[in-house]
Amino acid sequence: MAEITSYNFTIQPQDVDFTLRASASSIINYMLNVAGIDAHRKGFGVDALQGDSVTWVLSRLAVEIKTQPKQYEDVQVDTWVNEFNRLSSTRNFRMYQHDTLCAMGVSQWCMLDMKSRQAVDMTKLKDVYQSAMVDEPSPIAMPARLRAIEPQNESSRPVAYSDIDFNRHVNTLRYIDLMFDALPIELIENNNGMRFDINFIAEARYGEVLSVGSCSEGSIWQFEITSNSGKTLCRAKIEFK
Amino acid sequence: MAEITSYNFTIQPQDVDFTLRASASSIINYMLNVAGIDAHRKGFGVDALQGDSVTWVLSRLAVEIKTQPKQYEDVQVDTWVNEFNRLSSTRNFRMYQHDTLCAMGVSQWCMLDMKSRQAVDMTKLKDVYQSAMVDEPSPIAMPARLRAIEPQNESSRPVAYSDIDFNRHVNTLRYIDLMFDALPIELIENNNGMRFDINFIAEARYGEVLSVGSCSEGSIWQFEITSNSGKTLCRAKIEFK
Repeated sequence: MAEITSYNFTIQPQDVDFTLRASASSIINYMLNVAGIDAHRKGFGVDALQGDSVTWVLSRLAVEIKTQPKQYEDVQVDTWVNEFNRLSSTRNFRMYQHDTLCAMGVSQWCMLDMKSRQAVDMTKLKDVYQSAMVDEPSPIAMPARLRAIEPQNESSRPVAYSDIDFNRHVNTLRYIDLMFDALPIELIENNNGMRFDINFIAEARYGEVLSVGSCSEGSIWQFEITSNSGKTLCRAKIEFK
Repeated sequence: MAEITSYNFTIQPQDVDFTLRASASSIINYMLNVAGIDAHRKGFGVDALQGDSVTWVLSRLAVEIKTQPKQYEDVQVDTWVNEFNRLSSTRNFRMYQHDTLCAMGVSQWCMLDMKSRQAVDMTKLKDVYQSAMVDEPSPIAMPARLRAIEPQNESSRPVAYSDIDFNRHVNTLRYIDLMFDALPIELIENNNGMRFDINFIAEARYGEVLSVGSCSEGSIWQFEITSNSGKTLCRAKIEFK
């Protein structure tokens, strides 16, 4: 058994939106960066895995944001893994600004064989994982499984250089930016907190064209991003408080 | 007279492109962040100015990149102001990765009245500036004054939430991303250094539609971003070594 690990950051100018508060996408970015650093420190980071030509893939994520920290404020991100099975591992996050809990997150990861693009049985990581496991429940409900939507609005654009990661796939954060870009800006400006669920289904490559579909009912917005190759790439739901 | 000031950073996952090297846009982002922090520390930051309803505006920038630092590498950014007159101030940058000089930059700033949107006479900042001035020449040639181009290629898209800063204007870095997105990706992948010049002419707001025009001749690429309101927003030139 291990302990919860904490990482400290200062909210940078590129993290804030026009309200000078960290955007939902940059709050999620801090969580995902912490996931990368923490996995690395505990011996199961991408760098340790790539030798076996496998990599971590984020399959589902849920984040609840209470308040968005402001530019140049210091934040602390706590992280811990509390579940691990043959096909999935669960990593949790809590973000604090001084003593105020700003945001919480739960992420589910699987291991992907980079050649076959198939999920890998993680049983062989059992020992490393066992020693990194923390006996603390997830801070919020697990990410929802999201269904297909009937889009009321749609917009599309090609995948560009600034969208892609080292696998030449569209970066996770860019999908999230595209979804928030599809919202009425007043909803973001005046939000009093939100829950965001996202499911990653397939990967888009440089050269494909992304289409962002959305629909809303009351304070709930749903999104589906598809590719011109016919694939559904990801689905998400934002519920404003 | 003052001394050159240095700031230290670690290249983060969100800073690198698919080659796992810091993108030109993120190298520029580090320089501009350092400009903000350094101006603040020396008493002429945006926070000190906003009381007078004036703000700093970047008018021209030139950056020469020799090598792009890699993810998680530590970099040092040196900055100094070496020129100041009634309408413009010149701030310089050198970025090092250990002892290797990676990039150099020269930026020219003017002060804008946020109500009239007109340039402000900076004579009243003379004393603060005098004490911050450093007797060290700019590391590269001053930013070029760029002329209109005849675009060979053009693409357009609306200004989105994730593009805008606290003035609801398109963020400087986003213009740079849009330009690099318009390049053949192989040029970025295989580059052996470049010089980038940019002139900022007008500001685009949320709701406007941006059009990115480009043309090339040999290893020189030129860009012009315009708005559907008819304004030319910025022009840039990239020369690959």
